[in-house]
Amino acid sequence: MKKYFAEMLGTMVLVLMGCGSAVFSGHIAGIVGTGVGTLGVALAFGLSVVAMAYTIGNISGCHINPAITLGVWLSGRMKGKEACMYMLFQVIGAIIGSAIIYALVSTGIHEGPTLTGANTYTEGTAVQAFIAEALFTFIFVLVVLGVTSQDKGNANMAGLVIGLTLTLVHIVCIPITGTSVNPARSIGPAIFQGGAALSQLWLFIVAPLIGAALSALVWNLFDKKPVKA
Amino acid sequence: MKKYFAEMLGTMVLVLMGCGSAVFSGHIAGIVGTGVGTLGVALAFGLSVVAMAYTIGNISGCHINPAITLGVWLSGRMKGKEACMYMLFQVIGAIIGSAIIYALVSTGIHEGPTLTGANTYTEGTAVQAFIAEALFTFIFVLVVLGVTSQDKGNANMAGLVIGLTLTLVHIVCIPITGTSVNPARSIGPAIFQGGAALSQLWLFIVAPLIGAALSALVWNLFDKKPVKA
Amino acid sequence: MKKYFAEMLGTMVLVLMGCGSAVFSGHIAGIVGTGVGTLGVALAFGLSVVAMAYTIGNISGCHINPAITLGVWLSGRMKGKEACMYMLFQVIGAIIGSAIIYALVSTGIHEGPTLTGANTYTEGTAVQAFIAEALFTFIFVLVVLGVTSQDKGNANMAGLVIGLTLTLVHIVCIPITGTSVNPARSIGPAIFQGGAALSQLWLFIVAPLIGAALSALVWNLFDKKPVKA
Amino acid sequence: MKKYFAEMLGTMVLVLMGCGSAVFSGHIAGIVGTGVGTLGVALAFGLSVVAMAYTIGNISGCHINPAITLGVWLSGRMKGKEACMYMLFQVIGAIIGSAIIYALVSTGIHEGPTLTGANTYTEGTAVQAFIAEALFTFIFVLVVLGVTSQDKGNANMAGLVIGLTLTLVHIVCIPITGTSVNPARSIGPAIFQGGAALSQLWLFIVAPLIGAALSALVWNLFDKKPVKA
Repeated sequence: MKKYFAEMLGTMVLVLMGCGSAVFSGHIAGIVGTGVGTLGVALAFGLSVVAMAYTIGNISGCHINPAITLGVWLSGRMKGKEACMYMLFQVIGAIIGSAIIYALVSTGIHEGPTLTGANTYTEGTAVQAFIAEALFTFIFVLVVLGVTSQDKGNANMAGLVIGLTLTLVHIVCIPITGTSVNPARSIGPAIFQGGAALSQLWLFIVAPLIGAALSALVWNLFDKKPVKA
Repeated sequence: MKKYFAEMLGTMVLVLMGCGSAVFSGHIAGIVGTGVGTLGVALAFGLSVVAMAYTIGNISGCHINPAITLGVWLSGRMKGKEACMYMLFQVIGAIIGSAIIYALVSTGIHEGPTLTGANTYTEGTAVQAFIAEALFTFIFVLVVLGVTSQDKGNANMAGLVIGLTLTLVHIVCIPITGTSVNPARSIGPAIFQGGAALSQLWLFIVAPLIGAALSALVWNLFDKKPVKA
Repeated sequence: MKKYFAEMLGTMVLVLMGCGSAVFSGHIAGIVGTGVGTLGVALAFGLSVVAMAYTIGNISGCHINPAITLGVWLSGRMKGKEACMYMLFQVIGAIIGSAIIYALVSTGIHEGPTLTGANTYTEGTAVQAFIAEALFTFIFVLVVLGVTSQDKGNANMAGLVIGLTLTLVHIVCIPITGTSVNPARSIGPAIFQGGAALSQLWLFIVAPLIGAALSALVWNLFDKKPVKA
Repeated sequence: MKKYFAEMLGTMVLVLMGCGSAVFSGHIAGIVGTGVGTLGVALAFGLSVVAMAYTIGNISGCHINPAITLGVWLSGRMKGKEACMYMLFQVIGAIIGSAIIYALVSTGIHEGPTLTGANTYTEGTAVQAFIAEALFTFIFVLVVLGVTSQDKGNANMAGLVIGLTLTLVHIVCIPITGTSVNPARSIGPAIFQGGAALSQLWLFIVAPLIGAALSALVWNLFDKKPVKA
C-alpha cells in the first residue's frame, strides 16, 4: 500500500509543480516578459521528477506516469495487477495536484497564460500532435528503461538523468502540445479545464501509451529479455 | 560549536547569494530586460544550497533553514536543544547576509527591483500566500527527509537534489510571495526592508514551520519511525 | 550489430531533439520573444547527450558523433573498421532524425526560425567558422577523451559532463555557425535544407575532424599512450 | 611539467569559453534580445570549470585560477614553488585564451556587447567592486577547499559543485564587475582591451587573492589543520 501512496504523492507533486510553473510564472506563448518561459516550465517538470525520484524512488520506483508503468510492465519488471494499481493512484494524484492549483488560483494572483496547464493542440494539427506525443514518449521511456536497467544502467544517476530528459522533451514539445508524454499529467488538468482539453484528452492517453509500448519493444532488443505482452 | 558556526555561515551565503541575485540582477517583475529573471533567482537560491551542502554538509548537515531543522528534529534525527541552537545561528547568519547586501547596495550600483529581496504578498492574498508557503515547504522538506534518509536516500546526490528542488519551488512560488519556505531567509531581509515585509513576516515564519511539521509526519509514515512530537 | 543500431538511434535522438528545439521553440536570432533562445537550444543538444549516454553508453559507448569516434580511434581505444561502421550508422541516424523533423513540420505548426536546424555561416566568414568548429571540437573531444579515460576519468559522471560540455560549446558557437562539432549532425539537416547548408557542408565535416584529431594528439601527451595514426 | 601544461590548457578554455560567451552571445546589458544574457554567461563560466575539472582534475587538480592555488597553498596542500608555477601557467593560458578570442573576432561576426570580456567597474564604485570581488572569491574558494577536502569533501561531485558555484557567483556579480574572482581570467582580456580594464586591473588581482586567503583561514578553522602562512 505504501508504494501506491508514494505514486499518488509523486504524481501530485509533478502536476502541482510542473503545471503550476505554467500557471504562476509561465508566459509560454505570445507574451514578452519576465516569466520563466518555455525553458522554466521545462525545468519545472524535469526538476519535479528529480525531486521525487530521490525521495520515493526507493519506495515505489517513482514512475509517477502511466506510460512509464506500461513500459516497465511490458519489460517484465513488474506484475500486471500492480501496474494497474500504480496507474490508478497516479491518476488520483494528478487530480489532487490540479485541485491544489485550482485552490491557489482561486485565492489570489496568477501570472501565466493558463489556469490549469492542460494539454491541447491547435485545431487541424492532430497528426502532428499524435506523432510528437508518441515519439517523445518513446524516447523518454526508452531512457527510463535504459538508465534503470540492472546491468546496463546507473542507479545513482538515474533520477537526475530521467528528470533532465523530461526537461529536454518539454523544450522541444511545449510549442506543439504543451507536452504530455504522461496520461495522468493530462487527465488532472483536463478535468478542471474542460472544453478542448477534455475533447482532445484521448490523444494524450493513447499516443503516450503507444510510444511507451514501442520503448519496451526496442529496449528489449538491446537488453535480450523476452517482451511480456 | 563548529557546527553552529557552519549553519551561520551557510545561511549567510544562502541569503547573500539568493537575495543578492534579486537585488543585483533580478528584474523579477514588470521589467523587460537583460536580467536573470525569475529563473536566474530560482537558480541562485538552489545553487547556494548545492554549494553549501557539499562544503558544510559533513560538519553540520547543512540545514541553513529552521523549517528543515524542525523537520529533522520531528523525525527524531537530532535533539531539541541542538535544534534550537541551529535555528538561532541560522537567523544570525541570515541577518549578516542581509547586512552585507546592504553594504554592497550602499557603496555602488544595483539593477534589480528590490533592495533586500524580502518576502511579501499582495494585499488580500494572505490565504494564497499561506497555502503556498506551507505547501511548498512541505514538498521541499519532504524531499530533504527522503534523500537524506539512511536506508532510502542517496548521500552522494543529496546536496544536488535538495538544491535543485529549492530551485523548483522558487520557479513556481516567486510570483506569489517571492518564495520563503525558510523563516531565517525571510527574517534577515525583513529587518532591513521594514514596512510590509515586517508586518507580514509572521506568515513566513508560521506557514513554513507548519509545512515542515507535515513533512515529518508524512515521511515517518513511509519510513516507519515514531514521530517524536 | 547491436552497438551500431545503438549509435544510429542515439544520433537520431541528438538530431531530432537538438535541431528540433531550434525548429519548434528556438527563436535563435532576430526575434524578441518567448522561445527558449540560444540557451534553450544549447541545453537541448547537451541534454540529448546526457539522455543517450546513460541509455546506450553501456552498449556502444554513445559516441553519436563521427568526430568523437575519430578521436577514440586515434587514441587506440577501438579498431578502424569498427570506427567506420560507427560513423556510417551515425550518419544514417542523423538523416532519420532530420526526416522525422521534416514529417513533424509538414503536419502542423513550428515556431522557430529554421525548418531543419542546419549549420551555416555568414558569407565571408569561412575562416572564423573553420577556426571555431575545429577549436570547439578540439575542446569537446578532449573532454570526452579525458572523462572517459580509464585511469584519469570518471565513468559515473562522464555522460553528464560530456552533455554539459556540448551545451557550453553551443552557448559560445551558436551565433557563429549554429554549432556542429559533429559531421553527422550537419549532414542530416543539410540534405533537407539544401542551398548554403549543402554547399558549406564540407566545412562542418573537415573542421570537426581536424579538431578531433588534435584532441587525440594532446590527450595522448597527457595520458602517455602512443598515438595510433 | 605535465600538470603545468594542464593548468595552462584549462585556464585557456575557461577564458576562451567564459569570456567568449559574452563576446559572441552575451547581450549582458542594455540590449533586449535573443542572446544568452547574464544567465548564459554565468553558465558558460561554470560549465567550463565542470568540463575541465573532469578532464585535467586527475592531472593537476584543475585550479585554473591563482586565487584557488593561493587557497590550496595556504591550506598546506601544495608547496610554494609549485603554487608559483601554477599561477604563471594559468596567466599564460588566460592570455592564449584571449588571443584566440581576438583571432575569432578579427575574422568574422560577434554579437555580444564586448570584444574581450574584460572586467571593469563603474567609475566611483571601487569600494563596492572590491567588497564584491573579495567576498565572492571567499565564498567560491571556501567551497573549493570544502568539497575537495579529503575527509569532509566529495571527490566524485567536486567538479560539478565547483562549476555550479562559479555560475552562482556570476549570476550575482556580473552586474557589478562582470565577475573576476580569478586574477588570471582578468589579466588575459585586460591586455587586449586596454583602457579602464588595464588601469582597474589591480583590483581584480588584489581583491580575489585577499578573499582566497580568508577562505583558507576559515576553512582551516573547520578542518583543524594549521594555517601555513
